[in-house]
Amino acid sequence: MNHKNFSLKELAELAEGEITGNAELLISGFAPLETAGDGDISFLVKAGQADKLSGFKGCAVIVPMAIEEAPVPIIRVQDPYLASARIHTLLLKKPFVAEGVHERAWVGESTKMPEQISVAPLASIGERVNIGERVTIESGVVVGNDVHIGDDTLLKANVTIAEGCRIGKRVIIHSGTVIGSDGYGYATDNKGYHTKRPQVGIVQIDDDVEIGANSCVDRAAYGATRIKSGTKIDNLVQIAHNVVLGENCLIVSQVGISGSTTLGRNVVLGGQAGITGHITLGDGVMVGAQSGVHNNQQPGAMIGGSPSLPMKQFVRAAIQYGKLPEMARDLRKLKKELAELRAEKEHSNNSE
Amino acid sequence: MNHKNFSLKELAELAEGEITGNAELLISGFAPLETAGDGDISFLVKAGQADKLSGFKGCAVIVPMAIEEAPVPIIRVQDPYLASARIHTLLLKKPFVAEGVHERAWVGESTKMPEQISVAPLASIGERVNIGERVTIESGVVVGNDVHIGDDTLLKANVTIAEGCRIGKRVIIHSGTVIGSDGYGYATDNKGYHTKRPQVGIVQIDDDVEIGANSCVDRAAYGATRIKSGTKIDNLVQIAHNVVLGENCLIVSQVGISGSTTLGRNVVLGGQAGITGHITLGDGVMVGAQSGVHNNQQPGAMIGGSPSLPMKQFVRAAIQYGKLPEMARDLRKLKKELAELRAEKEHSNNSE
Amino acid sequence: MNHKNFSLKELAELAEGEITGNAELLISGFAPLETAGDGDISFLVKAGQADKLSGFKGCAVIVPMAIEEAPVPIIRVQDPYLASARIHTLLLKKPFVAEGVHERAWVGESTKMPEQISVAPLASIGERVNIGERVTIESGVVVGNDVHIGDDTLLKANVTIAEGCRIGKRVIIHSGTVIGSDGYGYATDNKGYHTKRPQVGIVQIDDDVEIGANSCVDRAAYGATRIKSGTKIDNLVQIAHNVVLGENCLIVSQVGISGSTTLGRNVVLGGQAGITGHITLGDGVMVGAQSGVHNNQQPGAMIGGSPSLPMKQFVRAAIQYGKLPEMARDLRKLKKELAELRAEKEHSNNSE
Repeated sequence: MNHKNFSLKELAELAEGEITGNAELLISGFAPLETAGDGDISFLVKAGQADKLSGFKGCAVIVPMAIEEAPVPIIRVQDPYLASARIHTLLLKKPFVAEGVHERAWVGESTKMPEQISVAPLASIGERVNIGERVTIESGVVVGNDVHIGDDTLLKANVTIAEGCRIGKRVIIHSGTVIGSDGYGYATDNKGYHTKRPQVGIVQIDDDVEIGANSCVDRAAYGATRIKSGTKIDNLVQIAHNVVLGENCLIVSQVGISGSTTLGRNVVLGGQAGITGHITLGDGVMVGAQSGVHNNQQPGAMIGGSPSLPMKQFVRAAIQYGKLPEMARDLRKLKKELAELRAEKEHSNNSE
Repeated sequence: MNHKNFSLKELAELAEGEITGNAELLISGFAPLETAGDGDISFLVKAGQADKLSGFKGCAVIVPMAIEEAPVPIIRVQDPYLASARIHTLLLKKPFVAEGVHERAWVGESTKMPEQISVAPLASIGERVNIGERVTIESGVVVGNDVHIGDDTLLKANVTIAEGCRIGKRVIIHSGTVIGSDGYGYATDNKGYHTKRPQVGIVQIDDDVEIGANSCVDRAAYGATRIKSGTKIDNLVQIAHNVVLGENCLIVSQVGISGSTTLGRNVVLGGQAGITGHITLGDGVMVGAQSGVHNNQQPGAMIGGSPSLPMKQFVRAAIQYGKLPEMARDLRKLKKELAELRAEKEHSNNSE
Repeated sequence: MNHKNFSLKELAELAEGEITGNAELLISGFAPLETAGDGDISFLVKAGQADKLSGFKGCAVIVPMAIEEAPVPIIRVQDPYLASARIHTLLLKKPFVAEGVHERAWVGESTKMPEQISVAPLASIGERVNIGERVTIESGVVVGNDVHIGDDTLLKANVTIAEGCRIGKRVIIHSGTVIGSDGYGYATDNKGYHTKRPQVGIVQIDDDVEIGANSCVDRAAYGATRIKSGTKIDNLVQIAHNVVLGENCLIVSQVGISGSTTLGRNVVLGGQAGITGHITLGDGVMVGAQSGVHNNQQPGAMIGGSPSLPMKQFVRAAIQYGKLPEMARDLRKLKKELAELRAEKEHSNNSE
């Protein structure tokens, strides 16, 4: 491999960890415990699984602080999951290689390309596009007119960025995703015909956002649909017009967010959840998978269900849901018993 | 801008509205109240928000009939939402500019192009395709053999229209959408192997239909999957084989409609709703978001929930759902109390 | 048509059926009962619908065993649905016509093409790709570096196969589908920033798999996301990283399967169902549409609802759900009656 080697010491510094063992050991790769080999560092998430280290064939292991020693060199860290992500990323990192604009790509005449750029064959880039340094554009990508793309951004195969949209730095957009499709807005007359409301806004995606495959972010009716920095969106997600997603949100696969809804920062939406339009979810709100959210949510709220409830209430209600047939039976029985008791009582009253 | 100017009088006629103010005023653009400037007309949906007009920097405002006068010229209309959609559309309208077939597009030899056409670089059009006047085909679009496309239709970047499908006039299909993928149909033998059932039908999309991004409309097993005129479909929607959608339906994002289901006209399906196969929803049926519909529905039915119920019943049931833990507790308590009462009664009977 | 003709006898052998009528009759096509004409064979699924045969204008009909004679030649079979799928497929079958690599396609220099291949204009194939015989690659397809594609596989327009993924033989992938997008995995620090976990695995798709349009199969974090032979996936489905789907599963439209979940063979997931991560569904599990599955499931389990329950329990609970307002009313009434009864009792006790 072309991977650069790093000393255990360098990696421990990156991970803010403590070394037990040879700090000068050279590491060239990263692999799970089971498959690690020569030159590899691996990781162990839970101290209770320390027995997994026996038979380990790699060089070193990132471990939680609770493990104080091991049969192999270790880096002890607060969060092995996070530390291993950082170290693995460093080990994989390669310098940008500018492949230039392939002669089988098409670029509008008025678009100026930076020095450091890779545009693959059969990518199409419109007029007056503004492209940063070290951008990679794969085959089949279509970039519309007047788009802005920041430094170090990666557009995977068959992505579409429609006219006028603005993409930040270090953004990754996976294949098939569409940025800047028209928002869904119509006005209906009294005969039931729909007139399209023009969608003249844009999409603005800030730095360090990642968007999965075959997702959609609609352009605003006016102004901008906005995805703030550090937010990570999964596959097949729908973001409607004029939605604003705060910083560092996590939007899991197949979520749908309706128009003009605003999310604070670090909001987490579980898979297939649906969020109605024109509401606000405060910072740190967590929404369970398949939930349906219809109301504003206070910062930190944890909710689930469709329509959504506070998570604890939802979990308790869901347990009772399965017992509904039993409850219905109990209720019928109680009615009958009570009626009997009243009848008896009636009878005994009458006979008194 | 190249926008044509219109007099307030011309716009009022289009919107069937009444002017208060200078009817000869020239309007060149459309913008929301907050951002309107020189030459712009804006709109106000609710009479109760008339105070928003103070500080308005545009030229004129479309208002509801209930507002009789204002500090600026107004067009009074029955439905400001609809009127503004019509006026905005008129103001944005540009004559079709035929850019021809780009030399970097590919067109099958047997396909004849009309005079008035725009085919972008890296679009691919098959053999024997029949294309109307003033059609726009963006980059990355793939049109299969024997497709028919009507006048004034717009296919956005990376759309796929598979072989034999028929697209009407003034249709808009957004990026990434696939028209004419095979329907999902298999016959399973007694060992559990699936044999594909050939899907030899087409998709027929009528005039004035709009389909969002990354949606799918499957071709029929035999005959045609059909989307009738004026229907508007959002992003990431699944339309299975042999579905028929009536005129002017609204199908919101992430809806799935299973095979051979028929919708009447002006049916509205809320986001993420799922409709089972081989059923019929009558004209004007309204289905709530995330609903699951398993049965035929009479015209005008309003339903919600999964499995779906009449909307009012669903709303009431959903409220009780959250109270289930409480109901279960009450029920346990009642059982206990009733048992005590019976025991007492028993005892007092025995002791009599 | 160019279709080859087959005798009724040949078709009956394929379908393991018995002929009543002229076994030498030549059949050239397949059509539904209503539209069948000269040379066509058709099929009838249920014996009770035998009256549909009157007025039939085709040549012969595939019927269930229970029909012993008919006014037209028949092939009697155990499963007309399966038999017709096999016969229709045979009748449609054409020899592969190698159209070669179109000069407007792009193929990496190090990729060697087999003799028998069709690569359409504006398809893009990377470096070191290994392609089998009789593969068809349509326009707009992007195949990344180091991909392996087996014999007789068909990639429809605008499909993306990302670097390193392995596709088996006789696989069909419909338009817009993305194979090998990065899995969704991040580690979050105590300030709420997300660090991407590198996704260095691949996707491996085995023989005879079919995947619908605009679906996504994410590459593994390490190792492989795996779809085993004969599994059929519908449109807009999400398969997360490190998922394993067993042989001959049926995954209906808009299903989402979270990371590291394993399905046995012949598992059926209804439309819009969601399956949580890191669980196992045994062979033959059936999951209802829109279900939410959070736990391991034994082979053969039939489940429904969100969160899911055993199917029978779910159906019963769903019926009661609609009656919740009534149950709540009954419960209130019972409480009141019981309180009255107790009060009376109390009173009579005191007065004794």
